[in-house]
Amino acid sequence: MALATTRQARDQSGIDLALPIIRQRFGDRCETGRALCEQHGHTTTWLANEAPDAVVYPENTEEVAALVEICREHRVPIIPFGVGTSLEGHVNAPFGGISVDFARMNRVLQVNDEDLTCIVEPGITRKALNAHLRDRGLFFPIDPGADATIGGMCATRASGTNAVRYGTMQGNVIALEAVMADGEVITTASRAKKSSAGYDITRLLIGSEGTLGVITKITLKLSGIPEAISAAVCPFPSVDAACRATIATIQSGIPVARIELLDAMQMKAVNAYAKLDLAETPTLFLEFHGSEAAVAADSEMVAAIAEELGGGPFRFSTLAEERTRLWQARHDAYFAALGLRPGCTVFSTDVCVPISRLAECVAQTRDDLDSLDLVGPIVGHVGDGNFHVLILMDPADAAERDRASEFLERLSQRAIAMDGTCTGEHGIGQGKMKYLRRELGGTVDVMRAIKLALDPDGILNPGKIFQ
Amino acid sequence: MALATTRQARDQSGIDLALPIIRQRFGDRCETGRALCEQHGHTTTWLANEAPDAVVYPENTEEVAALVEICREHRVPIIPFGVGTSLEGHVNAPFGGISVDFARMNRVLQVNDEDLTCIVEPGITRKALNAHLRDRGLFFPIDPGADATIGGMCATRASGTNAVRYGTMQGNVIALEAVMADGEVITTASRAKKSSAGYDITRLLIGSEGTLGVITKITLKLSGIPEAISAAVCPFPSVDAACRATIATIQSGIPVARIELLDAMQMKAVNAYAKLDLAETPTLFLEFHGSEAAVAADSEMVAAIAEELGGGPFRFSTLAEERTRLWQARHDAYFAALGLRPGCTVFSTDVCVPISRLAECVAQTRDDLDSLDLVGPIVGHVGDGNFHVLILMDPADAAERDRASEFLERLSQRAIAMDGTCTGEHGIGQGKMKYLRRELGGTVDVMRAIKLALDPDGILNPGKIFQ
Repeated sequence: MALATTRQARDQSGIDLALPIIRQRFGDRCETGRALCEQHGHTTTWLANEAPDAVVYPENTEEVAALVEICREHRVPIIPFGVGTSLEGHVNAPFGGISVDFARMNRVLQVNDEDLTCIVEPGITRKALNAHLRDRGLFFPIDPGADATIGGMCATRASGTNAVRYGTMQGNVIALEAVMADGEVITTASRAKKSSAGYDITRLLIGSEGTLGVITKITLKLSGIPEAISAAVCPFPSVDAACRATIATIQSGIPVARIELLDAMQMKAVNAYAKLDLAETPTLFLEFHGSEAAVAADSEMVAAIAEELGGGPFRFSTLAEERTRLWQARHDAYFAALGLRPGCTVFSTDVCVPISRLAECVAQTRDDLDSLDLVGPIVGHVGDGNFHVLILMDPADAAERDRASEFLERLSQRAIAMDGTCTGEHGIGQGKMKYLRRELGGTVDVMRAIKLALDPDGILNPGKIFQ
Repeated sequence: MALATTRQARDQSGIDLALPIIRQRFGDRCETGRALCEQHGHTTTWLANEAPDAVVYPENTEEVAALVEICREHRVPIIPFGVGTSLEGHVNAPFGGISVDFARMNRVLQVNDEDLTCIVEPGITRKALNAHLRDRGLFFPIDPGADATIGGMCATRASGTNAVRYGTMQGNVIALEAVMADGEVITTASRAKKSSAGYDITRLLIGSEGTLGVITKITLKLSGIPEAISAAVCPFPSVDAACRATIATIQSGIPVARIELLDAMQMKAVNAYAKLDLAETPTLFLEFHGSEAAVAADSEMVAAIAEELGGGPFRFSTLAEERTRLWQARHDAYFAALGLRPGCTVFSTDVCVPISRLAECVAQTRDDLDSLDLVGPIVGHVGDGNFHVLILMDPADAAERDRASEFLERLSQRAIAMDGTCTGEHGIGQGKMKYLRRELGGTVDVMRAIKLALDPDGILNPGKIFQ
């Protein structure tokens, strides 16, 4: 069966017909300048830049629906765009088309303090949202590192450092408004905190990478800013010991808010970058949220666990300034990594395995990096079994690119063989399409059947997820 | 468009052809006795009993796949069956067909202590699972009250008293194995705790009520049994005060594990049933999980909040026996309600609204019960904005039935008008089909398109969810 999800070629005639209509409707909010278009195809991966034909800046849902309608009529691809922090080529336009930039749809529409919910437009970034919420004593806990848009975070099912306590985007979105491929605007759920009313279309759209609908409003679950936050740092003699401490912590039901691993190479990078003298051994960075008494008790329990497994010294603090200082090395990870090979580019990839396999997976990955002569510090959301390799690569060095490709291939295979996933939080995009079927087999046919049912012409972000 | 999701009539010829084939394959594990069939169509609702033609007891996934294959070929409906605790007619067979009873697929296949996961067959009940896990210091936290099967809890997206802390089935299932309508066996995800690999087919099947696939294995997230559990009970002068205390507790980020409301009528029922002398005013039942220090601190904070809002006395305990005693009234709710009108039947319905509207919704619902001369105590999972009305009805009294129908209609409308849902945790089944479109509009068309794509012949639990 020829599936509409796989477009064979760019249909220039459709674009040529649609563009004047879009220009008439959106005026100077439809831009076609080469540089701008390339910037909207820009990705932070090593995938080639594939620019859209135009960038359109809608201001409300009706405009998005009108745009989808025009594109549907002329079979023109639509690629939703947040701020371009995605890592697997999600915003590239392999078949051309319209990049829908949500920069002008970035408002907070409603905050319900009592319900701990808010409704936002997709273009708001998580930091802007949290700045808006701070005075109300509320925050949105999902923190993927980058200051991504909430829309983009929905589309890729983002998570990050706080996921071990607060979950991923999957569990922190109550409802979505979306424009579907046929132009219909749907609201996937009420504002009730939970529901068992029919299929979970909210969760279907989260992680669908813009291929099933264009998200135009998001109802989020918020959390109260905890009374106390404490931070801790603890070096370990090995990745294995650090992982065992993490497992014991989680098994004990200690509600740690963040538990991050930096491997020895990353610690070395951090020391060099920030002129610190931290132990250059695998190190856990932790954060606890709760009442003063609870975070103190939780920290003490983890300190005891760490000591039993040969870790320490366990340094912790509830003072904001000291916390920031303790966590600085974690926050600096990306720039510190860059310093390992000045002039190179960092390409970040991620996998996620059952936590019982994490130490083994990290060790094999380290060996593989060494054997391929690649520089790649490892940073892990270790409470979830999820880790990133920050590969430092000279993009002009073709041989190194090939070795990096081979590394990526083996990393995904390794994670899948350990009953894990080729991507814990970055998504499939273009970069990991070839691993999806190896990981999920016939489930991919179910996904394709849904894609075909909901977007028969394949206009929504074609060339992503499915090969 | 004629949708296969709406079957018009029972196709007896298909069943007549399929039954001998099924009998040959399953021998005496295919039963057609009238009483057994009626029991498998039995529901705890007021919907009429609609018995299947046969009940089949598969022992493994291959047998389920073979059964689906036979049924697909002869267009025979398949209705998955756990233990029959569903409340909206999910296991009825309006078009006849085969009830697939998972009584023989009730094993724990794997427990991974380090990963806090287990893999189970759908027929295991939550109590049997927790008995199995207890010695390992682990538990599965979702507690819908009834000792439902894990498969049924997946199918209806169940939740219950612990949801305020641990979430619903939506957030506590890692992966599913399912037989799809075409006979294909899929595994929806790896065993990694999180993933962003493609569409979230796991969440699509959770809450699909057996209409998209037959679940045959479930990978669950487990939790460590907390070091300390404390329980508390606190009466309030009004439902409004109890709701405001709940909102303040959750806003403060206190990780309460359970927070349940019993209204004045339910408290009266409990006193009569268990010969207690609790205050007959709206009362909160709470539970805290964590370290000794954390639960003590958490309880004290909630006690202070309650006092400020006119509640009290706040009685709490960490001793197992005393905890049980404090919570007894909550656990007795159903049987105590029955005692309000001996000889009547309890029909339980639920809605869920944003918590800011909960007090208002409960008050209006109480007024409505009174104006319709219905006896219906109210019990709420108040931390989620979810509440149940236990309507005590004489099933033989047609006039009372009509008044109860009218009540249900108004209750769903009220919840939807408050931006809530017609069902927080019971599902749509047959009983709430007519409210789904009112609640979700065009999203129902998206659901139907998915149903049609994945089950074009409409053999999977037809006559449910969609009108």
